[in-house]
Amino acid sequence: MSPAEIENTLRAHLKKLLPHHWVRDVYEYATLPGGKLFRPNLVWSILKDINPDLYLRSFNKSYSDHALLASSVEFHHCYTLIHDDLPCMDDDTERRGKPCTHIKYGQWQALLSGDGLLNISYQLLSKTNAPRSLEVIRFFSWALGPKGLIHGQVMDLSHEMTANFQSTLRTHELKTARLIQVAILASACLASDKNLQREKKLWKYSKLLGINFQLLDDLSELTAVDLSQHERDVNPWLHHCHECFSATMKSLQNFNHVSDQLKLTETNKIICEYYKKMLKDILDNQEIIENHLEKKISLLPIISLIENFSET
Amino acid sequence: MSPAEIENTLRAHLKKLLPHHWVRDVYEYATLPGGKLFRPNLVWSILKDINPDLYLRSFNKSYSDHALLASSVEFHHCYTLIHDDLPCMDDDTERRGKPCTHIKYGQWQALLSGDGLLNISYQLLSKTNAPRSLEVIRFFSWALGPKGLIHGQVMDLSHEMTANFQSTLRTHELKTARLIQVAILASACLASDKNLQREKKLWKYSKLLGINFQLLDDLSELTAVDLSQHERDVNPWLHHCHECFSATMKSLQNFNHVSDQLKLTETNKIICEYYKKMLKDILDNQEIIENHLEKKISLLPIISLIENFSET
Repeated sequence: MSPAEIENTLRAHLKKLLPHHWVRDVYEYATLPGGKLFRPNLVWSILKDINPDLYLRSFNKSYSDHALLASSVEFHHCYTLIHDDLPCMDDDTERRGKPCTHIKYGQWQALLSGDGLLNISYQLLSKTNAPRSLEVIRFFSWALGPKGLIHGQVMDLSHEMTANFQSTLRTHELKTARLIQVAILASACLASDKNLQREKKLWKYSKLLGINFQLLDDLSELTAVDLSQHERDVNPWLHHCHECFSATMKSLQNFNHVSDQLKLTETNKIICEYYKKMLKDILDNQEIIENHLEKKISLLPIISLIENFSET
Repeated sequence: MSPAEIENTLRAHLKKLLPHHWVRDVYEYATLPGGKLFRPNLVWSILKDINPDLYLRSFNKSYSDHALLASSVEFHHCYTLIHDDLPCMDDDTERRGKPCTHIKYGQWQALLSGDGLLNISYQLLSKTNAPRSLEVIRFFSWALGPKGLIHGQVMDLSHEMTANFQSTLRTHELKTARLIQVAILASACLASDKNLQREKKLWKYSKLLGINFQLLDDLSELTAVDLSQHERDVNPWLHHCHECFSATMKSLQNFNHVSDQLKLTETNKIICEYYKKMLKDILDNQEIIENHLEKKISLLPIISLIENFSET
């Protein structure tokens, strides 16, 4: 699926689920054009890997189970971003190179469109028609609710995240990995009958992916020569450099290992594309990053692990 | 079901769905002790009316379909109240006789516990195990999402609600009636096979109930001798007195009519209890209210309609 195709589906779903009213603009502004679309891409690539026939029957239908799931995870992601940016949360002003939703339209408009997108993520799931639809909603709500993603936000805002490295990893698992895990596991659940062994491996695979994705994202935040005070306060590489390095190496190695067992060719291709972009960013600014880290570590082992993965 | 039994179930569900963490206090503070518990009471009374055998098998089980639905609608109601009270929304400081959640715990804590309760409302529904569970989630998310309850909040905050009386009624339908309709119709869906004729009547019944419930609630807000500027701005009785009077009379009459056809003995008993409380409040302060309304109308016809309903 190309980004344009994924965005067309997002647009079609919004068109149907929103009232004919100016508030439609707020929802569209907050969701389109899409960001990296990493999560909906994972939904499609997992389907292609696990059930290629179903992929061929589904990919060009806006109301196929996987089209519904792909939009659901993306809209859920967007709601978390809108709420995260609000003044009482991270108090950000820019997102994806444009003013945040609350800056452009106002705070209550942003808060309510976040609530609306959260509802929509469930509405789309409730329109799937698979034997395991209800099981998917059960998993989705557990992974993203008060014990899942939302608890990651609580740990972040309460600064428990930065108290020690274990808390940082736990926050990354909840705040970042859970939604990636939902994209991958829900896609598998909608694509086939229960396969407990594979689903256990997918759980591990997606958790490692979420964690090293976030650690590399944190690392790529250090490409700016001048860092904001907030960035200095929260970037785990600045506080736990060696532990971040070991955790990244370990999670990448384990990820490569589980990945080999699962043989997810399409999904690994997608992940590589994203990782190569991050890698380029890191390579282009290697010296700046190593300076921020006071040259405590060399980035070469990480870079070579990612390059290695790309070649498999 | 007594209020204490409903609250015990709410408490049991929270205990299971929240992390072991101080944030648990925020969720509990925002939901317990419960308010009027009107919506969970409707869930149970509809079950008792439609499928008394299932009621007897369900009422004392925390994980029966209807216990899950009763908590779901109540937690969904609580999330809307927490978000409505935030400074960027209605900016209230008190709720149910105590400081609002954001006053007691802070804004991000309130915002995230609202998001958490919204997720929990779906999580509880996903644990129901009825033939129509997925249909219920579809209806729930439509009725309470961007075209439903949330659009009522948008109309309220954008002041479209007060532009004319039609908009007031529409806002009441979306912001108040929808959740009451969910309580009633979802309870019916989980209690029996499809019965299109009855469900159409229940739709009408619950919509009329939601609208006259809100209009009477607006009226009972006028019992204070001194009204805040906000109350003066938004109370529809002060701006469209005759239309509110006609709409209340008409919706009560139609409600009585549909109610007779449906023969919902237990549900009517529950509704009467709530209405009698409102009535007492209105009767005790009849002169104050009529003064606010500049004696444009007499409350007697409304009072006698409610008394009439109570006796049937």
